[in-house]
Amino acid sequence: MTGRFSFNQATATGWALPDLVAGCRDAGVDAVGLWREPVAEFGLDRAARLVRDAGITVSTLCRGGFFTTGEDWYDDNRRALDEAAALGAPVLVLVSGGMAAGDRDLAGARDRVADAVAALAPHAADAGVTLAIEPLHPMFAADRCVISTLGQALDIATRFDPATVGVVVDAYHLWWDDRVYADIARAGAHIASFQVCDWITPLPAGVLLGRALPGEGCIELRRMRAAVDAAGYRGPIEVEVFNAELWDRPGREILAAALEGYRRHVA
Amino acid sequence: MTGRFSFNQATATGWALPDLVAGCRDAGVDAVGLWREPVAEFGLDRAARLVRDAGITVSTLCRGGFFTTGEDWYDDNRRALDEAAALGAPVLVLVSGGMAAGDRDLAGARDRVADAVAALAPHAADAGVTLAIEPLHPMFAADRCVISTLGQALDIATRFDPATVGVVVDAYHLWWDDRVYADIARAGAHIASFQVCDWITPLPAGVLLGRALPGEGCIELRRMRAAVDAAGYRGPIEVEVFNAELWDRPGREILAAALEGYRRHVA
Repeated sequence: MTGRFSFNQATATGWALPDLVAGCRDAGVDAVGLWREPVAEFGLDRAARLVRDAGITVSTLCRGGFFTTGEDWYDDNRRALDEAAALGAPVLVLVSGGMAAGDRDLAGARDRVADAVAALAPHAADAGVTLAIEPLHPMFAADRCVISTLGQALDIATRFDPATVGVVVDAYHLWWDDRVYADIARAGAHIASFQVCDWITPLPAGVLLGRALPGEGCIELRRMRAAVDAAGYRGPIEVEVFNAELWDRPGREILAAALEGYRRHVA
Repeated sequence: MTGRFSFNQATATGWALPDLVAGCRDAGVDAVGLWREPVAEFGLDRAARLVRDAGITVSTLCRGGFFTTGEDWYDDNRRALDEAAALGAPVLVLVSGGMAAGDRDLAGARDRVADAVAALAPHAADAGVTLAIEPLHPMFAADRCVISTLGQALDIATRFDPATVGVVVDAYHLWWDDRVYADIARAGAHIASFQVCDWITPLPAGVLLGRALPGEGCIELRRMRAAVDAAGYRGPIEVEVFNAELWDRPGREILAAALEGYRRHVA
């Protein structure tokens, strides 16, 4: 039907969870990526029941992390792991956090991420959920995620069993890196999630919401998908697009466009 | 007086060239980085005479490049080299160009940059001007410059004599890269220019004009300056800040702020 396609909830932020689940079921989509905030708003147990009853699996829960700036990161990430387990999500996506105000020690911030992952790994193993370190584009290094390349994520993840700590390969964040194909091969079983969207310019203010549906931009998505396959990854492929204009469209229309982009440019 | 400080013209775009030269002279600043468009507007020979008569040297001319998308790149870059020579500027800064509309072959675009530099190198040697490949932050890879890391720039530049082809180390574009210090050491004599400004967030729409004066952001500028020194670079240090709010201030005030930021956070 829709193969390895998974629909990430952040692609249609205005779509209420029951409508999203119904829309996916009607479109033959059997996997979704969910986010903690809308899940909490709907109710964790209720959300878990909703997707389970619809025969839909949760490919990832977004997101934990924010190790470098948050006081509460340890407890919050333990809660996030428990939430993922409750949803049956095998993967918790980690956005590691940026630099604190006034901080200029980027290498030190990266070290703190490694320490935080090590501190959380035992709980991840207990929960049966993989901590998936997501490198974000270097334009987010200061304010969102000091892990900027797949190589950096792997330098941390490969210290652990792949079932406990892995990486997210997100085409949007990594396409510019001339080492990304070598790093995907190196990643192997540590690839816990593969996410796609496309790169377009000009970037909007804040640069977060300038992403595009697969095929609308300049990323060789199919090449990257083939590389991830060649590395041994067999899991879901999440279409995750943050775009303010896209969000204005009806949920079912967004889902259809994401599926079309996936089929034509990724699968 | 002001040591190795050089004031890049793009830091005060509203400042007419004669006023900028007078302002620099009054502040004891003896080096400026110039841009082709305002120089052409003022008149090339007239600009060359103006700076020479004021005892000011031109540390760089910005900019050549745009190899990947422009039809006219070969002739235009030959003209840019001649303009640099006429101004007595030892360095032509190259912004290599982004990806053409519909193109997804980033590696191919990078290869075309290498070919273009090779084609121009003989003319650079004749003109006595160094072609300086500037890696731009990966957020510009699609629309402005496919050379995203110092390593990529060096892979091209090190095929040539450092007097003919070098690299620009610009702190703003490179600070996020965990390989930048190793690459600066590798660069050695190929460092043709060192430029500084600081990284702040949120980025504005289009992301070009979101830069900050040295000390206002999160870059370890002094560490990078020390690394460039340790690699053997003894040339000018250009403060180059693109910032729409800064541009609204009077030229002399901008120059004073740039000099202050340089002294406190770079020198």
